[in-house]
Amino acid sequence: MKFPSGVKKNETIKHATKNEAIKSKDSKKKNLGKANLGMNLEEMINESNTYYLVNDIAVIHKKPTPIQIVKVDYPSRTKAVITEAYYKTPSTTDYNGLYKGKYIDFDAKENHNKTAFPLANIHPHQVNHLRMIAKHGGIAFMIISFNQYNEFYFVPIDLILEYWDKAYNNGERKSIPYSIFKENCHLIKEGYMPRLNYLKTIDELYFNNDNKNLEIK
Amino acid sequence: MKFPSGVKKNETIKHATKNEAIKSKDSKKKNLGKANLGMNLEEMINESNTYYLVNDIAVIHKKPTPIQIVKVDYPSRTKAVITEAYYKTPSTTDYNGLYKGKYIDFDAKENHNKTAFPLANIHPHQVNHLRMIAKHGGIAFMIISFNQYNEFYFVPIDLILEYWDKAYNNGERKSIPYSIFKENCHLIKEGYMPRLNYLKTIDELYFNNDNKNLEIK
Repeated sequence: MKFPSGVKKNETIKHATKNEAIKSKDSKKKNLGKANLGMNLEEMINESNTYYLVNDIAVIHKKPTPIQIVKVDYPSRTKAVITEAYYKTPSTTDYNGLYKGKYIDFDAKENHNKTAFPLANIHPHQVNHLRMIAKHGGIAFMIISFNQYNEFYFVPIDLILEYWDKAYNNGERKSIPYSIFKENCHLIKEGYMPRLNYLKTIDELYFNNDNKNLEIK
Repeated sequence: MKFPSGVKKNETIKHATKNEAIKSKDSKKKNLGKANLGMNLEEMINESNTYYLVNDIAVIHKKPTPIQIVKVDYPSRTKAVITEAYYKTPSTTDYNGLYKGKYIDFDAKENHNKTAFPLANIHPHQVNHLRMIAKHGGIAFMIISFNQYNEFYFVPIDLILEYWDKAYNNGERKSIPYSIFKENCHLIKEGYMPRLNYLKTIDELYFNNDNKNLEIK
């Protein structure tokens, strides 16, 4: 059995994109903080979603990576083997689901930069999709990590749109400074179960009338 | 270029499962009613979703088919070719999204039977998923066609659960009679744009206080 370059034999890729495979490799090297036990951001979110699902708290799934299938072989009547396929650009975000009757939609971005989050990490279709979600009454956001500080921020789409539109309409800076996250965004609480309790942040921001000056405990 | 058996050269499979490919072939033969212009149910729904998206009515997408990737080749630094992969059983339904602030979740089932809809067409994980969606406040349903009559029914998950639980807990019949659809379900209006206006049915069922004795115009 052959594996993609850079992926060891015992790290069978389950349902990962090329980027995810690369990301996974990177973060295993760079992101070995105690708190997340060597997990990358995607793994932490997937584990949290499983926790939410099993405990009947929310139904949030990662969407499968879209694949363009070109060639399928049928070695037997019941077996299908895809023998030629390509990664496609997704038209939406990676995660969506349902929490307390509300539609939830987000993407997760791992960031190794110390001073800012470069907007180049976001694809235009993701911004467009989240813009529409917010417009139609869903909860749209991104989870952005600052791996150098082992911090995970809950970033409402409004903040991203502000910088995105300034960058691509007015030609301003194409990144969001770290200080903006520090001052305006909510740190997501890390723990053992769930690993990354982003629904607690949603509780405080969207399901609590007294949501000024929030402090995550 | 090689194509899966049974699929003609000009019908390139875009992102279809084995079942979808088979379904597509079947329905092209059997489902050539004038109203749907030879489209199968999935194609009609996808076209309707595009209409809803483009016209800023709702954001509803088909989830990509989950694929287990085993082998990826990199003929160049920027190109990835998947050379061995398998279809996986999805853990959710095919469609979800957002309409008027509500989370929408459904599956579509093409049915060639004249007298009933066999429950064997539904996978247990789909029922479990829709059961949870309803419990958490989403709109959970199935779109079930009776191709022999060129009819498309909006079937709330409650009705399916009633028959499902009777069948698998009490050993009763493992199908829903056609008469039940006729008497208790809502016909989805077919048209040119959108092809299958299932959001109109949702309007009448969920966004209208006077939703008794509904009649689709």
